[in-house]
Amino acid sequence: FNRQFADLPVTIFTVMSALARQHGAINLGQGFPDQEGPQDMIRLAADALLDGQNQYAPLTGLPELRAAVAQANLRFHGITVDADSEVVVTSGATEALAASLMALIEPGDEVVLMEPLYDTYLPVIRQLGGVPRIVRLQAPDWALPRQALADAFSARTKAIILNSPMNPTGKVFTADELAFIATLVQQHDTFAICDEVYEHLVFNTPHISLMSLPGMRERCVRIGSAGKSFSLTGWKVGYATAPAPLAAVIAKAHQNLVFATPPNLQRAVAFGLNKDTAYFTTLAQDMATQGAILASGLQRLGFGVLPYQGSYFIMADITPLANGQDDVAFTRMLTEQARVTAIPASAFYATEPPRNLIRFAFCKRPEVLMEALNRLEAWK
Amino acid sequence: FNRQFADLPVTIFTVMSALARQHGAINLGQGFPDQEGPQDMIRLAADALLDGQNQYAPLTGLPELRAAVAQANLRFHGITVDADSEVVVTSGATEALAASLMALIEPGDEVVLMEPLYDTYLPVIRQLGGVPRIVRLQAPDWALPRQALADAFSARTKAIILNSPMNPTGKVFTADELAFIATLVQQHDTFAICDEVYEHLVFNTPHISLMSLPGMRERCVRIGSAGKSFSLTGWKVGYATAPAPLAAVIAKAHQNLVFATPPNLQRAVAFGLNKDTAYFTTLAQDMATQGAILASGLQRLGFGVLPYQGSYFIMADITPLANGQDDVAFTRMLTEQARVTAIPASAFYATEPPRNLIRFAFCKRPEVLMEALNRLEAWK
Ligand SMILES: CSCCC(=O)C(=O)O
Ligand SMILES: CSCCC(=O)C(=O)O
Repeated sequence: FNRQFADLPVTIFTVMSALARQHGAINLGQGFPDQEGPQDMIRLAADALLDGQNQYAPLTGLPELRAAVAQANLRFHGITVDADSEVVVTSGATEALAASLMALIEPGDEVVLMEPLYDTYLPVIRQLGGVPRIVRLQAPDWALPRQALADAFSARTKAIILNSPMNPTGKVFTADELAFIATLVQQHDTFAICDEVYEHLVFNTPHISLMSLPGMRERCVRIGSAGKSFSLTGWKVGYATAPAPLAAVIAKAHQNLVFATPPNLQRAVAFGLNKDTAYFTTLAQDMATQGAILASGLQRLGFGVLPYQGSYFIMADITPLANGQDDVAFTRMLTEQARVTAIPASAFYATEPPRNLIRFAFCKRPEVLMEALNRLEAWK
Repeated sequence: FNRQFADLPVTIFTVMSALARQHGAINLGQGFPDQEGPQDMIRLAADALLDGQNQYAPLTGLPELRAAVAQANLRFHGITVDADSEVVVTSGATEALAASLMALIEPGDEVVLMEPLYDTYLPVIRQLGGVPRIVRLQAPDWALPRQALADAFSARTKAIILNSPMNPTGKVFTADELAFIATLVQQHDTFAICDEVYEHLVFNTPHISLMSLPGMRERCVRIGSAGKSFSLTGWKVGYATAPAPLAAVIAKAHQNLVFATPPNLQRAVAFGLNKDTAYFTTLAQDMATQGAILASGLQRLGFGVLPYQGSYFIMADITPLANGQDDVAFTRMLTEQARVTAIPASAFYATEPPRNLIRFAFCKRPEVLMEALNRLEAWK
């Protein structure tokens, strides 16, 4: 079998979700909301099924969804793109990311990454024969290590993956940091794959897309996720925005990976992206409230709560509570004894991970977060 | 950009479908039915959306769909598999195929293929650094060239891709041919990727799965498609059945390519796979009738109609009508002048294609096929 894939562990999200089910634990591990997305979108998706939207969608997506993605790029990021040639609809952001890497990377090409990192980046890069150059951000504030980042770029760099708002840290890159990254990308005549699935989930912090910076319009793939923007993670509808020549190659990777995405879901996501701005701000406000509930509760319990500005996630330092256990043992123990599940942050590192951090998801109803905090309190 | 993908043409199905729309042609090119799949499945998929099936499905699929796939393997092919460890649900058969190749192939591995071939096989193999060994079947009867096939196997062979019922030829491999292929696979200690998306679409011919042959249970990935079995090509729900150790690696490729498939569609497909056998035989009978309408009409018009036993497709020899034009020019001309679209069969060859064959899809309502034949008659 292919060693790259055969040697991969089962994803930590599946492992911890299974353990949560087994112990009846509240699952603050895998990042999916427990509140349904907008009813009007769901109804529209159901109506579209009954209305005969059941054969192949066009390869790059329904025109109405590509138009809505282009519109959203303009409205939220000031980026003007052509809906016909610069948007590719995919089966989720995971596929958009795989297709973007396939479109860019040839064996030997280097890809700059920032650690801690989302768990599909490295396997896909390695499978393509790409060479990862990993720069580590340091807790607690995850500031950009500028010199190390500059040193990670070389003549063989093909791309950097930038995930902002960032999973698992909740970090939102600042205008200054983005400008520094943009300079490196341009100096080295390379590309940025911008994983912005949490673009609408920022808390009192502006999210700036790297693609909106001067000179970056032609150097970025911007990846968005209907799952994350509309709390419909099961739909697996994503979208990549890229300059036309690159978008055409992403489409060809998509053609060979999946080919097309269910049209009824696409129609509903097009409708969702056209919602007025209040929908998106309310989503962020609700999520901010949930984050605040979890953060203050964890703090009260004695966890170290690291700063976060966006995403579904909080990183917590377990040192005060762990009695020397590492993050893996501690999350397992929490699931079994407190019946609350989190993700050991070591899963987000390629080598020599810190052993004192775990990730909690707060994309859950306030009462669920309260109950989780009560369970932790009772266990403590 | 990645040369593999950058150099690929836009898929012929997209090109010809666009041309068909442009000229108001009847599209007998891209293989999708113009009749909706079962209303009960569509309604169930819609109800599941409203019923809250909107967050991530499990990585390898809903348990109810995996159980249904296992059941169908037993009912239709006599193959016993474990639903938990030997079935992986994917976003369509295209993804199942990509994930299966990723699970098996390492750079330098050889893959045996039969030409004419479906258009995603070669790009994925090449992108993985695999080396294709292509054996050509010859019109009009597409008999297996046994010596050439045996010669294509070597110590570096990792897998053969077997597409039966076969696109674009409509060939269904015979028991004898399958036994010969099974012997080669076992002799060379290798695997078979069985693309059986048209498994239920055979006409007075039994479809035998290679996986059901003695000794092949542990050497095959069998790929099925809800799109093709239920006339719901837009849903992009596929499934791979493989021995547990291989299925585990396919699941890891799937994890990094897409991760999961919409749960509401999965629930409806599980229901569909449990339908009584009459559903599947009626589907095949209706398709056989449509094939017969098209075949006899084409024959009357002077096309050479090649034998077919399954799939959505008929290959036609244009020599009597083409006035020396090649298949590409002829299909273009047919679209523009007769307003009927077919696929030039040269698109299914890697090198030196025959230039006298085109592929018609008959997965269309009888009245649509009649109208297409009338148009061809009027043009002639
Ligand atoms: C695709 S499962 C993981 C979901 C997620 O983005 C996360 O929990 O980090
Ligand atoms: C995925 S589009 C092509 C559909 C099909 O299988 C065919 O027409 O051959």
